[in-house]
Amino acid sequence: MMHSPSIPVSRRVMLAGLATSITATAASQGGAQPQADALASWHDGPAKQAVLDFVRTTTSRSSNGFVAPDDRIATFDQDGTLWTEHPIYTQAMFALDRMQALAPDHPEWRTQDPFRSVLANDMEAIGRFSERDWAEILFLTHAGMSQERFREIVSQWLATAKHPRFGRLYTELAYQPMLEVMDYLRANGFRTYIVTGGGQDFVRTYAQRVYGVPPEQVIGSSIATKYELNEGKPALIRLPKLFFDDDHAGKAIGIDLFIGKRPYAAFGNSTGDREMLEWAGAGDGSRLQMLVHHDDAQREYAYGPAGGLPDTKVGTFDQSLLDEAKARGWIVISMKDDWRRVFAFD
Amino acid sequence: MMHSPSIPVSRRVMLAGLATSITATAASQGGAQPQADALASWHDGPAKQAVLDFVRTTTSRSSNGFVAPDDRIATFDQDGTLWTEHPIYTQAMFALDRMQALAPDHPEWRTQDPFRSVLANDMEAIGRFSERDWAEILFLTHAGMSQERFREIVSQWLATAKHPRFGRLYTELAYQPMLEVMDYLRANGFRTYIVTGGGQDFVRTYAQRVYGVPPEQVIGSSIATKYELNEGKPALIRLPKLFFDDDHAGKAIGIDLFIGKRPYAAFGNSTGDREMLEWAGAGDGSRLQMLVHHDDAQREYAYGPAGGLPDTKVGTFDQSLLDEAKARGWIVISMKDDWRRVFAFD
Repeated sequence: MMHSPSIPVSRRVMLAGLATSITATAASQGGAQPQADALASWHDGPAKQAVLDFVRTTTSRSSNGFVAPDDRIATFDQDGTLWTEHPIYTQAMFALDRMQALAPDHPEWRTQDPFRSVLANDMEAIGRFSERDWAEILFLTHAGMSQERFREIVSQWLATAKHPRFGRLYTELAYQPMLEVMDYLRANGFRTYIVTGGGQDFVRTYAQRVYGVPPEQVIGSSIATKYELNEGKPALIRLPKLFFDDDHAGKAIGIDLFIGKRPYAAFGNSTGDREMLEWAGAGDGSRLQMLVHHDDAQREYAYGPAGGLPDTKVGTFDQSLLDEAKARGWIVISMKDDWRRVFAFD
Repeated sequence: MMHSPSIPVSRRVMLAGLATSITATAASQGGAQPQADALASWHDGPAKQAVLDFVRTTTSRSSNGFVAPDDRIATFDQDGTLWTEHPIYTQAMFALDRMQALAPDHPEWRTQDPFRSVLANDMEAIGRFSERDWAEILFLTHAGMSQERFREIVSQWLATAKHPRFGRLYTELAYQPMLEVMDYLRANGFRTYIVTGGGQDFVRTYAQRVYGVPPEQVIGSSIATKYELNEGKPALIRLPKLFFDDDHAGKAIGIDLFIGKRPYAAFGNSTGDREMLEWAGAGDGSRLQMLVHHDDAQREYAYGPAGGLPDTKVGTFDQSLLDEAKARGWIVISMKDDWRRVFAFD
């Protein structure tokens, strides 16, 4: 396991996904489709039961909570909810690796802060980066190319980069129980959206393959793009400028902007998901809000209310979120107690 | 018919939909689904044939141009492409009417420009409004309430407001031939999106009912919203601030932002749609781009290359668009020659 100091970076600056936590240790009309093993990676318990109850209620024509198929929408945070976010957001790791790849063309970086710390793999210095440092790194690695080219670069990186603790591709670190929930909801006529503080274009490169979620159902933070015609052929060029910050209140705003309907179910794991869960829960009828609690240092990580990793200022599962969950009836998923296995390879 | 001077308002300021032209006179895996009368309101001719050919090519497994169902996306401009935009954008009419409705609470408007001209129904003065005047009117009528409340206000207005020439609800002024194209594409596995310079939230209030297009498939211009909690209940409040300008280059940007896939077919009628058609046409395989040409003063209006109405600076079908259409093989639909009827009530 990797140890490094906490990094106080807001998701806003990192376009989300590049933030917080280099911390320590690193069918639709009928009733619910019966699938014997739909949630096979879940232990029986209140969390699993809540998912089953929600689907039964919203899909049974005879139920007061019946939801028309067109309105069956479920939204999922990504980092920490659908896959591992420690010791550092995957997208932040991409940015750091990308700096290394670009370094040969930038000899000046070797003597220039904050770049020299990145090139030297100085995790302690990286841990002290300011928001401005991260913004510089972000824009250097995420802007200045076409959308098409950016997606190629991300895809190539994802094909080989490995997680420092698990030695697996990042795309293998999706939580098997959550993949089952997504599948189960879809089998019952729900559309599953990812609503991530991370970069929308970054996540779209793999969301279909990893989560079964097509690009148009990935809502995330984004930078501005510019339309250019070169010899009659158009391109969208990524600019070093934040366009939309899809975190905290931005998640409710983004859901309304992209979908225009209120989700019936929402899944998160941090204070960045608070407003999304509030927004989903404020509608009529049967609603399901769940928070993944990372309390499993053995199989993954323990942080938030479980302690184990120091809290950072953003993107954390703090006491205020736990209090709100209790007050509003949001269900806390214990990774340790509710999940039979964490990853597909377990 | 209504006569009034041309209004030089950019769509940017009007959040789109409020612009330009108070001018003069006011199954998826198999082959194409055979529907005998799928395009019953079209005369036989190159435009109708282009639609039929495109669908056959993109849905026949044996064709080089076959497109996987998940990628079958078609985008449609609204004003002037799917329904009447003369003598004034429907949303601009809404804004002017809304000012009248709000006037009793604003006695100061009676002596204040530009509001007094609106209250006096002085179309000549309205014709001279600056962009700043329109922005004031827009924000007064489109901001300061929750999304929910705004949608109610729009719905109530649409239920009674009538078009000055046709004496019909605005929602009755959708073009029957275009509705048939949308239906035909959907019957063949395409998802139909509206990509409008008009206000996204405005169009979403009726797009399902009028066009069969759900909210999440309406991409448009939008103003910023703010998330608020009132006694624990969240609301999104509309702010007097442009968030996204979905016109001209913004249409290509918006398509990439909201869908993340390139459309195979795109339909427009003005220079505001140019980049959308360029973007759709720049992909591989079989592509269809069409422009509605308003050359039918009898049944609707004649403007653009057909003359009849003076061109304005934005949102028009000018010579440069006609030249580009010829150069790129975009198909120009003659409302007069290609459409057997214009409206469902014809």
